[in-house]
Amino acid sequence: MKAHVETVEPTVEQETAELQRLYADFASEHLVPLWTQLDELMPVSPAPAARPWVWRWSRLLPLAERAGALVPVGRGGERRAIALANPGLGGRPYATPTLWAAIQYLGPNETAPEHRHSQNAFRFVVEGEGVWTVVNGDPVRMSRGDLLLTPGWTFHGHHNVGDRPMAWIDGLDIPLAHYLDVGFFEFGADRLTNRATPDLSASERLWCHPGLRPLSGLQDTASSPIAAYRWPYTDRALREQLLLEEEGHAATVEPGHAAVRYVNPTTGGDVMPTIRAEFHRLRAGTETALRREVGSSVFQVFDGRGSVVLGGTEHELERGDLFVVPSWVPYALRAEQQLDLFRFSDAPVVERLHFARSRIEESQR
Amino acid sequence: MKAHVETVEPTVEQETAELQRLYADFASEHLVPLWTQLDELMPVSPAPAARPWVWRWSRLLPLAERAGALVPVGRGGERRAIALANPGLGGRPYATPTLWAAIQYLGPNETAPEHRHSQNAFRFVVEGEGVWTVVNGDPVRMSRGDLLLTPGWTFHGHHNVGDRPMAWIDGLDIPLAHYLDVGFFEFGADRLTNRATPDLSASERLWCHPGLRPLSGLQDTASSPIAAYRWPYTDRALREQLLLEEEGHAATVEPGHAAVRYVNPTTGGDVMPTIRAEFHRLRAGTETALRREVGSSVFQVFDGRGSVVLGGTEHELERGDLFVVPSWVPYALRAEQQLDLFRFSDAPVVERLHFARSRIEESQR
Amino acid sequence: MKAHVETVEPTVEQETAELQRLYADFASEHLVPLWTQLDELMPVSPAPAARPWVWRWSRLLPLAERAGALVPVGRGGERRAIALANPGLGGRPYATPTLWAAIQYLGPNETAPEHRHSQNAFRFVVEGEGVWTVVNGDPVRMSRGDLLLTPGWTFHGHHNVGDRPMAWIDGLDIPLAHYLDVGFFEFGADRLTNRATPDLSASERLWCHPGLRPLSGLQDTASSPIAAYRWPYTDRALREQLLLEEEGHAATVEPGHAAVRYVNPTTGGDVMPTIRAEFHRLRAGTETALRREVGSSVFQVFDGRGSVVLGGTEHELERGDLFVVPSWVPYALRAEQQLDLFRFSDAPVVERLHFARSRIEESQR
Amino acid sequence: MKAHVETVEPTVEQETAELQRLYADFASEHLVPLWTQLDELMPVSPAPAARPWVWRWSRLLPLAERAGALVPVGRGGERRAIALANPGLGGRPYATPTLWAAIQYLGPNETAPEHRHSQNAFRFVVEGEGVWTVVNGDPVRMSRGDLLLTPGWTFHGHHNVGDRPMAWIDGLDIPLAHYLDVGFFEFGADRLTNRATPDLSASERLWCHPGLRPLSGLQDTASSPIAAYRWPYTDRALREQLLLEEEGHAATVEPGHAAVRYVNPTTGGDVMPTIRAEFHRLRAGTETALRREVGSSVFQVFDGRGSVVLGGTEHELERGDLFVVPSWVPYALRAEQQLDLFRFSDAPVVERLHFARSRIEESQR
Repeated sequence: MKAHVETVEPTVEQETAELQRLYADFASEHLVPLWTQLDELMPVSPAPAARPWVWRWSRLLPLAERAGALVPVGRGGERRAIALANPGLGGRPYATPTLWAAIQYLGPNETAPEHRHSQNAFRFVVEGEGVWTVVNGDPVRMSRGDLLLTPGWTFHGHHNVGDRPMAWIDGLDIPLAHYLDVGFFEFGADRLTNRATPDLSASERLWCHPGLRPLSGLQDTASSPIAAYRWPYTDRALREQLLLEEEGHAATVEPGHAAVRYVNPTTGGDVMPTIRAEFHRLRAGTETALRREVGSSVFQVFDGRGSVVLGGTEHELERGDLFVVPSWVPYALRAEQQLDLFRFSDAPVVERLHFARSRIEESQR
Repeated sequence: MKAHVETVEPTVEQETAELQRLYADFASEHLVPLWTQLDELMPVSPAPAARPWVWRWSRLLPLAERAGALVPVGRGGERRAIALANPGLGGRPYATPTLWAAIQYLGPNETAPEHRHSQNAFRFVVEGEGVWTVVNGDPVRMSRGDLLLTPGWTFHGHHNVGDRPMAWIDGLDIPLAHYLDVGFFEFGADRLTNRATPDLSASERLWCHPGLRPLSGLQDTASSPIAAYRWPYTDRALREQLLLEEEGHAATVEPGHAAVRYVNPTTGGDVMPTIRAEFHRLRAGTETALRREVGSSVFQVFDGRGSVVLGGTEHELERGDLFVVPSWVPYALRAEQQLDLFRFSDAPVVERLHFARSRIEESQR
Repeated sequence: MKAHVETVEPTVEQETAELQRLYADFASEHLVPLWTQLDELMPVSPAPAARPWVWRWSRLLPLAERAGALVPVGRGGERRAIALANPGLGGRPYATPTLWAAIQYLGPNETAPEHRHSQNAFRFVVEGEGVWTVVNGDPVRMSRGDLLLTPGWTFHGHHNVGDRPMAWIDGLDIPLAHYLDVGFFEFGADRLTNRATPDLSASERLWCHPGLRPLSGLQDTASSPIAAYRWPYTDRALREQLLLEEEGHAATVEPGHAAVRYVNPTTGGDVMPTIRAEFHRLRAGTETALRREVGSSVFQVFDGRGSVVLGGTEHELERGDLFVVPSWVPYALRAEQQLDLFRFSDAPVVERLHFARSRIEESQR
Repeated sequence: MKAHVETVEPTVEQETAELQRLYADFASEHLVPLWTQLDELMPVSPAPAARPWVWRWSRLLPLAERAGALVPVGRGGERRAIALANPGLGGRPYATPTLWAAIQYLGPNETAPEHRHSQNAFRFVVEGEGVWTVVNGDPVRMSRGDLLLTPGWTFHGHHNVGDRPMAWIDGLDIPLAHYLDVGFFEFGADRLTNRATPDLSASERLWCHPGLRPLSGLQDTASSPIAAYRWPYTDRALREQLLLEEEGHAATVEPGHAAVRYVNPTTGGDVMPTIRAEFHRLRAGTETALRREVGSSVFQVFDGRGSVVLGGTEHELERGDLFVVPSWVPYALRAEQQLDLFRFSDAPVVERLHFARSRIEESQR
């Protein structure tokens, strides 16, 4: 703020021993004055410590494979998950201040034992198959393009029944829950409670009929009762939006940019109270507006090729690449080929606490 | 109420000319005393004027066909619709105090012109095909088993492009809107604004992907944005519930009784603010509990054979038959064969005004 | 609608015996065609049967006094209440299609026994004192200017502990509950459960502290937990609005027109699910805009002198006079002296069912 | 978690150079494995870094007075506020992870200039008078026992018109806004926009009438429109709860423990989206249950004498003392004399994100 106004500068005379004594007495009483901290505490606009950053799938996957060879999975460590650690966040395993994003790796016949925790979690599968995640006893197949939910306090474990390893992305609100001191954790079965491998989970069979709600499920729930959002539905929804746009309907977010939000069918709102999940598709040649949004996001390229302009720097993007958009950092997407991106963010937190703002900038390109 | 307490009976002395003069003076001032009306106005439990009643499809359809031959459809009369007139409601075309239910009939190449009104409407198709309803310019195919919505103040018209006549059921809140004096009406195009006959409406292509919400549709709406709820989805949802029940899951309303509610995907609530729509399937041999519910319903048999015990009387049921359950009248369903029923009701009105009650009775059979 | 478009008139040829036979067959099957009824069923804008009407306090009160002399109050008749019967509503005791409004009269030492019902009720006191209403065992003093609530299914009775009779206005949703078939009724104690006469009810002592909510009352309730809204608060709120307006603040509805809505402090919404209650004060010389609103209202003049233009006719108004504004009938108020009006309406019904509309007309005066 | 189960310990063989190389490669790619961090990241129950702590008013006030003599107040530093720095939170000026609590001090004739920020703020006055805070142009008197709100993005400044200094408590969500990167800040007028010193603010005159809502304020707001919650109302509400309890009503939280929540009258919910404010009164001799709650709180003793058992340690409490209860730390209050406490917390954050839990422990005393 100093740049913008004439401040009341303390005079040299005030910088006396008396003031130093006062500050020392503050410290010994566990007190801190506002006037020496204001600029950092209350900036003119969000000044995130988290940095815009890109992680390459081509570097992540080999490291996960090496971990698969060296580190067992099982009770105690619980998961063979390797987290993105935003370089602005002091080495902690936080992709953004609120969000955890990790690559998880499970070898053939391996099992990640059951547990539950307050933290909300999902998996998104950029490639591979062969793993079932068991959510409160309901086995859920994991396949490319699927979003799988394990909302807070649902028991869950994973097992690979295939003969090939599988890797996917985990997203959680671990940093938020840690920050707010709200997390509880409980171990479940070491082996999974249900080792069946059905094509569809019970939750999908009960809930995945568009516009239909079972009368046995009339109570609204804080998180979605759908354990798996399948790729064929997502793909079709996006394809239809682009076709509808071609036919003259108002179906897309902006020209050439189709997008869906994964929602809780009992409310029409976000899948979980702290995490928003979306899928975006850009027609080849499309460039989005340059946006700023309060709150932080993680994107993963699902398919195609293009780039992101992120805080003024352009980064090429390929399948599996992950990037982070911290709060209020301007970003735009550009599609060379049709570009498919999965996105998750802390937008529900920002919106529920009434801090949401966004702005579309004049393009700087 | 007189049966339950000793009342303060007016004495013979009070039944004097003086009292008669008072009552006459009330009348001339447009006043009515409570004490002479209380029993009728405020009964111990709902005492509906509407009667439980069954209309036979085998009688309705031939009458609709005769109307098709004799009565043109077009501007002014607007629709060739023949309404169920509950025998307890004084000859008015009201299936229940709040609900309109009619059979509508459209011959080959006929058009019902566009209009809009505050009243909420739907169609449900028990048989046939060949008609498209055009809702705010979006053509919507009508086929057996589909539920089609035209919420309040959406323009809509119908045209039959086939070479056979088609009949279906209309449901509206006409009586309620008339009672509350809330209705507006406006004519639209005489010919339809869009004569295309696509397999899927734009609304379905945008909205009918389970658990996915378009980012272009993030504003919640009072009524569902889905114009058509297709039979294959409904059928599959019900089939899965019965299968899940067999596998030991809690998926049905009661043993052998699967049911879905049609919902607004932006909220998870009812499709329209005044009308609830549901579909029920009973496994062959199932008999439901005997229920009383505040609020009134209309059922139509979609398929199968069975019966309903309605206010103490059992009625055989066949495909297309319609019956009315007035408020607080006990009813139970019995399936000889697998029995499929469409249901609509004024439950959203009752619930939004906080009058809902229900009770399961000990069976009387 | 016929006035507005060229209709498809049935030809003379169609008016044959065949058509007559069809209509007769409809009737015997309890069916009614839409095309002969549309104009009345679905008018271009609300065409209420209820009529704008004014009842004079100077006529009502003497009639109530005569009833006090002739008709006992007690179990069976329950209340000595004389209802406004809108001349458009066929002699039924309905002020509007949804609302009951009555003058209730209780002589010295008389008791109206306890009962409860689904119907929501309130009393508003235009003059007098000496009666306590006991709501779920909590005695509530009734004084001039107070609004007293007895929401659906709360036990309530009244007793006059003074040596003078007292009259007041009752408002209920009796017609709505009767129409919807939602009403239950139960007798309570013949004598009152609590004959104390405290200045303030327990409900007020717990809830009437602005902006403060007891931690023992954190569960939201469908109706307000406040049993009495006291005149001194209402008066002060209105006085402050007019003063704030003079000081340049945006505090009034329109210039010279102060107004408050009585609300449920657990939600900020209407006091009961079906009834809105408001108080309006017009500065001397103020004339309001000419408004149309969907839904029906009853006003009572609390103090002052002025007039209402109601459906094109101007009526002089004095203390205690009651008038009805049916749906969509234009009305404007004019204050000769400062004019205070109590108002209640079915607006919550109209709004919850998404039928609300309003319009300000160009003045016609 | 290690204490509770047999974990899969990495073998000595695995602690090879290969694993070290893998970990080094993780680090250079900004990756962190879960399995080495799980215990700290996801504890069995909340393990807050923040510590239970007590600050003594007798130490705070003299330090604030010394700051008054040495540090000017004005543009740039903005406020002479001295923040509680929880000793567990690394020297940052955070009372808890989410909440800022400071003593602010303003000398005679001093002005704290106007600004606004996304952060939600309130002041609570434990003693003194003479300062007006000007909120969006509305001057608000500050007196002992008052709670004064300046919700996010409202302009506000303070000026002391008396001849004595005044000190009070500021509460904000600064740490939360900083953590989430959601804060914006804007300077306003250097001198205040309105230097009037009315007894009541316009906001109070419009909104502080129990159960009454101005028709000019029908739009719900995220934060309360009431700028000042006055002590006489709070005191009376608490006094009535204790009296009602004596008379046999269910009015208190637990025996001898009266409490009110300050609420937004447009919704009945918390005063601001991120901060809950309450006032608690314990009858002399009362001891509360030992509670654990998810989320963090700050208490200030307003009057009386007693103690708090906080994380197993008992602390004597006197007027003005502040203490912090971190998440899930058990606490109980004990009143020697009647004990009055103001409390604020991040409970709305915890509840809106669906992380709330609480537990009453068997007493350990």
